[in-house]
Amino acid sequence: MNQKILSSCLALVLGAGVGYALDAYAQAKPEVLVKQRQAVMILHGKYWGPLGGMAKGKVPYNAEIVARNARFLDALSQMPWDGFHPSTKDAQNTKALPAVYDDPAKFKEAQDRYRAAIGKLVAAGDEGAFKAAAGEVGKSCGGCHNDFRAKK
Amino acid sequence: MNQKILSSCLALVLGAGVGYALDAYAQAKPEVLVKQRQAVMILHGKYWGPLGGMAKGKVPYNAEIVARNARFLDALSQMPWDGFHPSTKDAQNTKALPAVYDDPAKFKEAQDRYRAAIGKLVAAGDEGAFKAAAGEVGKSCGGCHNDFRAKK
Repeated sequence: MNQKILSSCLALVLGAGVGYALDAYAQAKPEVLVKQRQAVMILHGKYWGPLGGMAKGKVPYNAEIVARNARFLDALSQMPWDGFHPSTKDAQNTKALPAVYDDPAKFKEAQDRYRAAIGKLVAAGDEGAFKAAAGEVGKSCGGCHNDFRAKK
Repeated sequence: MNQKILSSCLALVLGAGVGYALDAYAQAKPEVLVKQRQAVMILHGKYWGPLGGMAKGKVPYNAEIVARNARFLDALSQMPWDGFHPSTKDAQNTKALPAVYDDPAKFKEAQDRYRAAIGKLVAAGDEGAFKAAAGEVGKSCGGCHNDFRAKK
């Protein structure tokens, strides 16, 4: 492989102001972890938004968009959790509450409920199943957002 | 389904300062599209970073991390493109060059090359195949970052 081109690609990615640990096992800086968590939530907005609209009947049901967005949400819903590393407990610019670090078992339960609901969303084969699954996703969002995230 | 809970979930997502179009077909605001594009790149940093390190031999090869990150990159690599909507041509806080909008065919070619390389990364079954695929991914990053993104 072409090391030089790969290096410049890595430099480009670094140049984007992202920053990451080159060592797969090293922990990224707290502020990087927070940015990565927030990036996941921005993309939840992009891909859950239209599904929420469909579930509420504000947007016509579109099976193709549902299937694509559910697939993306399946990936996204796995991404935030390792970013809630203890090193981020005192990080700035985050609405994560101390409960994230003080009650990890309850936080994990909320994550698991959310992941299970997303699994149903991915498996939903028609509008009825989609609406039922979307309802569960909606409820499960609150599992983290109500108890582990500051309101303001 | 429980409309009230779903509504509060939607409100929570909106409250994250993300913003999105409730109508699946409506176009989000340019600044939202830019943020979503940038969120995708932040997560590329998270999941490509360790693979770049492995490809360069700086980090020990770990088949499990490769498989997981490649799967995530497969989803992420599909996400940025619809965010390069013509409405974002004059957006602030983006390094995307006018070439994105002036030469969409070449931009699309670069996207397709990148997506094809990610496909090989996903399919790579051993360290040798991984390194070859990672090399192609590395090259294909430059397809957009060299020609469609400002250096500073």
